[in-house]
Amino acid sequence: MSGRVAMVHGSGGKATGELIDQIFASEFQDQTLDEMEDSALVAGCGRLALTTDSFVVTPVKFRGGDIGRLAVCGTVNDLLMRGAVPKYLTCGWILEEGTEIDLVREMAHSMAETAREAGIRIVAGDTKVIDGSIAEKSAGDAAGRYAGGILINTAGVGFVPEGVSISARNAQTGDAILVSGTMGDHHAAILSERMSIRTDIESDNAPLTEIVSALVQSGLHIHTLRDITRGGLATVLKELAETSGRTFEIEQEKIPVTAKVQDFCSLLGLDPLYMGNEGKLVCILPAEEAEEALRLIRSCRYGAGAVKVGEVTGDEPGILVMKTEIGGKRLLDVLQGEGLPRIC
Amino acid sequence: MSGRVAMVHGSGGKATGELIDQIFASEFQDQTLDEMEDSALVAGCGRLALTTDSFVVTPVKFRGGDIGRLAVCGTVNDLLMRGAVPKYLTCGWILEEGTEIDLVREMAHSMAETAREAGIRIVAGDTKVIDGSIAEKSAGDAAGRYAGGILINTAGVGFVPEGVSISARNAQTGDAILVSGTMGDHHAAILSERMSIRTDIESDNAPLTEIVSALVQSGLHIHTLRDITRGGLATVLKELAETSGRTFEIEQEKIPVTAKVQDFCSLLGLDPLYMGNEGKLVCILPAEEAEEALRLIRSCRYGAGAVKVGEVTGDEPGILVMKTEIGGKRLLDVLQGEGLPRIC
Repeated sequence: MSGRVAMVHGSGGKATGELIDQIFASEFQDQTLDEMEDSALVAGCGRLALTTDSFVVTPVKFRGGDIGRLAVCGTVNDLLMRGAVPKYLTCGWILEEGTEIDLVREMAHSMAETAREAGIRIVAGDTKVIDGSIAEKSAGDAAGRYAGGILINTAGVGFVPEGVSISARNAQTGDAILVSGTMGDHHAAILSERMSIRTDIESDNAPLTEIVSALVQSGLHIHTLRDITRGGLATVLKELAETSGRTFEIEQEKIPVTAKVQDFCSLLGLDPLYMGNEGKLVCILPAEEAEEALRLIRSCRYGAGAVKVGEVTGDEPGILVMKTEIGGKRLLDVLQGEGLPRIC
Repeated sequence: MSGRVAMVHGSGGKATGELIDQIFASEFQDQTLDEMEDSALVAGCGRLALTTDSFVVTPVKFRGGDIGRLAVCGTVNDLLMRGAVPKYLTCGWILEEGTEIDLVREMAHSMAETAREAGIRIVAGDTKVIDGSIAEKSAGDAAGRYAGGILINTAGVGFVPEGVSISARNAQTGDAILVSGTMGDHHAAILSERMSIRTDIESDNAPLTEIVSALVQSGLHIHTLRDITRGGLATVLKELAETSGRTFEIEQEKIPVTAKVQDFCSLLGLDPLYMGNEGKLVCILPAEEAEEALRLIRSCRYGAGAVKVGEVTGDEPGILVMKTEIGGKRLLDVLQGEGLPRIC
């Protein structure tokens, strides 16, 4: 099967069946998925974690990743942020007419590989085709606007082990605030692709299964985990300060940013604090456990750059303060305005 | 909040938060959803049913329903087809820039109402915004192609009661084949909207919770349930004949079609056997239990028109035969070619 996606692939008839068999079932190979029933039946007990995310990133391929990988990482990471063990993934593909079949296959392959890496099974799926504008706009335009080609929704189910209670509400005064690595990589990678800027900045899109599994199994008292996506670290921390009713204080000079991303940001006047990642998390836990947590995170494949960036300093709710490099203090808010459209 | 959706509503920042709070959280009111965590935590035990479906129907509002109602019914019905009790729904909204905020609210309201009717809780959601073409093409064109405006993915989780085993594989020779009502209503409603034909044909989009619950609790030996969607009754039965490895035989004169839909089909040269519904099912069970099953289905709100349309007649796998009104026999295949694009 090759060529381009046509409306007939969305008919629900013969052509849809061929697309599913030859691309999705063949890439995702799962006994439950292969049953091709209306719902997948799986076993489960206890507390379930459920989440969903749609992925509309353009371009669909970028340095360090693609929409197939992203669609697994985004949902797996959301499950992990509750301390859940990711188990089952559903995927809904919306294809624009005119999209190359080979591109669909490549993205399905990437999704399957990432699901294996993340330890989650793809057990149900759906495919729709919509009228395409990709033929006219396939290379994108100067304003950074692209025809989609491929949109993917994933929903995930995980199981939360007995005794685990990780929530955006749990931050306590005195807690340490850790991040698992450098800020802004995904945002900078997408933007440089769109602007055709030659850099070797790579997206950090990755499943955080290993890091979270290490933390949860360690017996440390993890209060809060949150992945750093749209809106960047500042938006995430401001929201956590609000949800937990605490004051968060971070130090600008401790925010990790690679030299490449820092140069890229300086050139374009961007602030890494508001730039999205797709493979980084915030971890909040008692200060006395911070060193052990950092050691664990750094021992994981995607956690080598973990550092402490600040502390929960008080009970005035919803305040995020940054000590600047020149010694001042600045109040930070959530992202205002557009940010980068279609980053994930 | 009113006006139109802008790219800023997809930023993950302040504007996204406003859209979520004022439209989705306010319409969907659910304690778990309101926690606004990365994943929803719910309780569950036993066998889980999982399913997903994306909805790309155009126009988003049509006689008898809309995309909000459809997005609940489609996924709830897929859960029900395994005998599962629908429990939790996730929803991913992809909005085209330029879509009226009031339309988004109206669709969210419809989704919330339908979820209540269907007995399922909306516990997790996601919102993305993509570049829109709706401004240019909002009314659609003669070829039946429309800008989307709103795309919705839903994923559903249900629990399968102990002892229930309903599968596309289970049809047995001698079984009766029932349908819960008239064919082609949804397809005809969508098509008449697109062609601006004045009819009072209404979509049948409905949750089949009551019907399936009655059947499962009755103690009857339900072998197979399948909702009749894209591709119509012929496609569904041909696929079931293949999956179960049996021969299915139906009688043309018993296929229920309303006079309005029949007239509409005659006018346009359409075959109701290949036209999609969104609130009808096929039920396959032992012939001696058919009358009791029909009585139960007919007692339900969306099952008044239930009839027996045929039988499982043999073990030659994958054969679907129709006795025609003039006494002949015709072999039926799955839908070939396009069907009606973007019907669900």
